[in-house]
Amino acid sequence: MRLVSLSEVLPGDPVTNQEMADRFGLHEQWLDAMTGNRTRYFCRPDSPPGVPRSTGDLATAAGEQALLRSGLDPASLDFIILTTASPDQLMPATVNLVADRLGLDDLPAFQLTSGCAGALQGLYTARALLTGGGLRRGLVIGADTCRNLWPPDGTVAHLRPVEMVNFALFGDGAGAAVVEADDDGPGLVVEHLFTRTVGKGRPPAQIVRWYGAQGAPMVTGSRGEPVREAMSEEDYKAIEQHVPEAARAILDELVAVTGWPAAEVEHILIPQLNGVMTEKIRKYLGVRTDQAVCCVADTGNNGNALPFIQLNRAMRRIATGTGVGGRLLVTTVESSKWVLSGMALHHRPEEAGVVR
Amino acid sequence: MRLVSLSEVLPGDPVTNQEMADRFGLHEQWLDAMTGNRTRYFCRPDSPPGVPRSTGDLATAAGEQALLRSGLDPASLDFIILTTASPDQLMPATVNLVADRLGLDDLPAFQLTSGCAGALQGLYTARALLTGGGLRRGLVIGADTCRNLWPPDGTVAHLRPVEMVNFALFGDGAGAAVVEADDDGPGLVVEHLFTRTVGKGRPPAQIVRWYGAQGAPMVTGSRGEPVREAMSEEDYKAIEQHVPEAARAILDELVAVTGWPAAEVEHILIPQLNGVMTEKIRKYLGVRTDQAVCCVADTGNNGNALPFIQLNRAMRRIATGTGVGGRLLVTTVESSKWVLSGMALHHRPEEAGVVR
Repeated sequence: MRLVSLSEVLPGDPVTNQEMADRFGLHEQWLDAMTGNRTRYFCRPDSPPGVPRSTGDLATAAGEQALLRSGLDPASLDFIILTTASPDQLMPATVNLVADRLGLDDLPAFQLTSGCAGALQGLYTARALLTGGGLRRGLVIGADTCRNLWPPDGTVAHLRPVEMVNFALFGDGAGAAVVEADDDGPGLVVEHLFTRTVGKGRPPAQIVRWYGAQGAPMVTGSRGEPVREAMSEEDYKAIEQHVPEAARAILDELVAVTGWPAAEVEHILIPQLNGVMTEKIRKYLGVRTDQAVCCVADTGNNGNALPFIQLNRAMRRIATGTGVGGRLLVTTVESSKWVLSGMALHHRPEEAGVVR
Repeated sequence: MRLVSLSEVLPGDPVTNQEMADRFGLHEQWLDAMTGNRTRYFCRPDSPPGVPRSTGDLATAAGEQALLRSGLDPASLDFIILTTASPDQLMPATVNLVADRLGLDDLPAFQLTSGCAGALQGLYTARALLTGGGLRRGLVIGADTCRNLWPPDGTVAHLRPVEMVNFALFGDGAGAAVVEADDDGPGLVVEHLFTRTVGKGRPPAQIVRWYGAQGAPMVTGSRGEPVREAMSEEDYKAIEQHVPEAARAILDELVAVTGWPAAEVEHILIPQLNGVMTEKIRKYLGVRTDQAVCCVADTGNNGNALPFIQLNRAMRRIATGTGVGGRLLVTTVESSKWVLSGMALHHRPEEAGVVR
């Protein structure tokens, strides 16, 4: 499988820690130190026309951009996959509406539910469809929004710090890749790709709830007062404990399978939890700053979009000259209930497109 | 791809129209006439131990049953897929938790978001993984619960009839299939399988919302009073208009590809919207009652579970003697945002297991 083109969509203007602090009554310095994230982007119900307001808007924009960059006719797509943890509705699947907006019809459309490992699960599924399903070309999109996770304005002061920090960690965004079965052509050729559950019996380290008609139940807040149950909870200690070792296991497997010495790989995409954690993981893995492809400190953690955005930025590095013939290793860890996913790719430059 | 074993799980005791009428202040005769459904099953928070209370419980039970019937070691599974419109949480994906409860680890796990077309989308994905992914055996589960769609007790009288009827249409359930790449063996061998979007530009005929931390917004009820927005809405006219013709298109394609004359096919699985609509579709398609494999009048519309339950009941018909060597055609129509999915299978009996 070959990634023909990539895209990256972030809605509106970046939101700074100062703005977050003002909005939620938090301390800017606490946000800086706790998360290491400087900015993030949010879909807003009142965004001007053309600025994405929803997961579907983001996914559509990312799909359009990837198609435009591929130079291919959208009608030549054989399938579409969307991976997300935050669909706009439970039904219809957001991907069906995105396909319609992209002018696509009469093709298989799949929506995968996942978090940080979703992008690679989508690409894994795409590869199976291309290899075994007789299909030639597809579009894989990752998109997430966190607007629905937020408590009603004014209630944030009642939340525990671990809940508050979530609003600073997360952001909205989307990315996409046009993929082809044919490896002969410019782009990123997949050498190895895997996804698998790990940590049998280990409890989830992240929970995002959805509420039915009755809405969020009331629970007791930090001062004993009734508050709505938090949509999102993280076991930050478990994440700190397990994600670095999980990333190492992925990297070790990719290096073993490809035979590429880690120190020589030009682009290593490490898990993007937040600025602080990602820097810790980079050091733990022994990945140099010139190798690491990171974005979370600027984009916020936008889940299924992140690996596409990292790939897009790696491609930009390659396009600007330093990395022709570059190799990429991608590591993603799902910490909700544990999944490891990894991918190795090599860059195939434009001029090599006609020869094997 | 071959379906080695099938399963069917319905939680607790059947709930009659009389019980529905008593609970929601509806008329039993109106339910009988409007839906044609006699019973359905519901997960309840207060169910006794061992009775499924959630999508995850249902999916786990269906997976266990299918594995038990296959006689295969769960550790020999190479992947697991869950299709659902009603995951227990947005994160983690319910499938990751189900895998853990089934004792599975170190394998790819996928969760597809879909409605009535979900079961076949799951099997389509499984086939790609088996054919192109180098995997040999997997478990595909469909499960749905509708508990979170229900309004808080006592508010149903304020809903419009079209909203009320939803509570009588839907039910909870799960089904599963163990699938193998190797066609040599007993079970149901897939001859043809497709899924594709249709109806470009046509609006969704079913919407199921999920609400974030702020819960369902208030809207104006039928008497002008404020009520919570309905979780679920159906455009029943659009469904009545498009589903029968969609089912015919699927059936025509399956007949054309297999060359099986429709009148000679022993088991035809038609869309299971509700008892009344399904009977209309059967007549429209010219499918005889002895050919049609239906369950919705007894199970309620449990979405992703339905085709597995129909397949399970077709297998039961075959096992009880009438259908050795039987052929099956499966038609499913996603009316949320339109998808057609179809599958043709032939039964391969036990004794044929060792010869090609």
